[in-house]
Amino acid sequence: MVVNIDFGSDEAIYVQLRNQIVLGIAKEEIKNGESLPSVRQLADELGVNMHTVNKAYTMLKTEGYLTMNRQRGAVISIEVDERPRDELVTAIRMITAEAKCRDMTEEDLLRLVRDIYRDL
Amino acid sequence: MVVNIDFGSDEAIYVQLRNQIVLGIAKEEIKNGESLPSVRQLADELGVNMHTVNKAYTMLKTEGYLTMNRQRGAVISIEVDERPRDELVTAIRMITAEAKCRDMTEEDLLRLVRDIYRDL
Repeated sequence: MVVNIDFGSDEAIYVQLRNQIVLGIAKEEIKNGESLPSVRQLADELGVNMHTVNKAYTMLKTEGYLTMNRQRGAVISIEVDERPRDELVTAIRMITAEAKCRDMTEEDLLRLVRDIYRDL
Repeated sequence: MVVNIDFGSDEAIYVQLRNQIVLGIAKEEIKNGESLPSVRQLADELGVNMHTVNKAYTMLKTEGYLTMNRQRGAVISIEVDERPRDELVTAIRMITAEAKCRDMTEEDLLRLVRDIYRDL
């Protein structure tokens, strides 16, 4: 998986890192059960603080994308129970409302989601 | 517009307030050009700190949903230029990736988005 961090972006680096990992899972570049690099290794590779990588991993853990394992470190482990699904539906509801606020039609929004899904 | 705050929720109150206002705009319960209650008035009504309301209004301002006006207070004013649209597309991309990670099929996701859009 290639991780691209934009140091000039307004978005916090740990959020960018979290997003890139989620995109990597969606694109099946990283699969369920695979280990991510250690915090130290990834921090060195990206030239960021270990604290930043740790924050991204903790966020992914809270969201049910990974577990922390003493031997294997951060392991991708997608939670499939109700909780993350409910949170996802709430997030989809908000983004749909935002699209409607910005005058995006139902048709435009559905086309955009479909194109993005197929491109992942 | 009815604002429902869940004081037992994990979600920060200012985020809940911001979300409810975005939903209100999407449902056309509040329209472009209309004033929101003053910070003090809304804080009193909801039983929250003025700082919390202020944080929600500032977030909406940053996102291009409202402007602050000396006479009229917080006025809904939807920005329609490129910037919020680009940010929206990025957010839709992330939520689509999250749905795919959670094994939501393209068909299920499109049906969900369509149902939510029509229900707004």
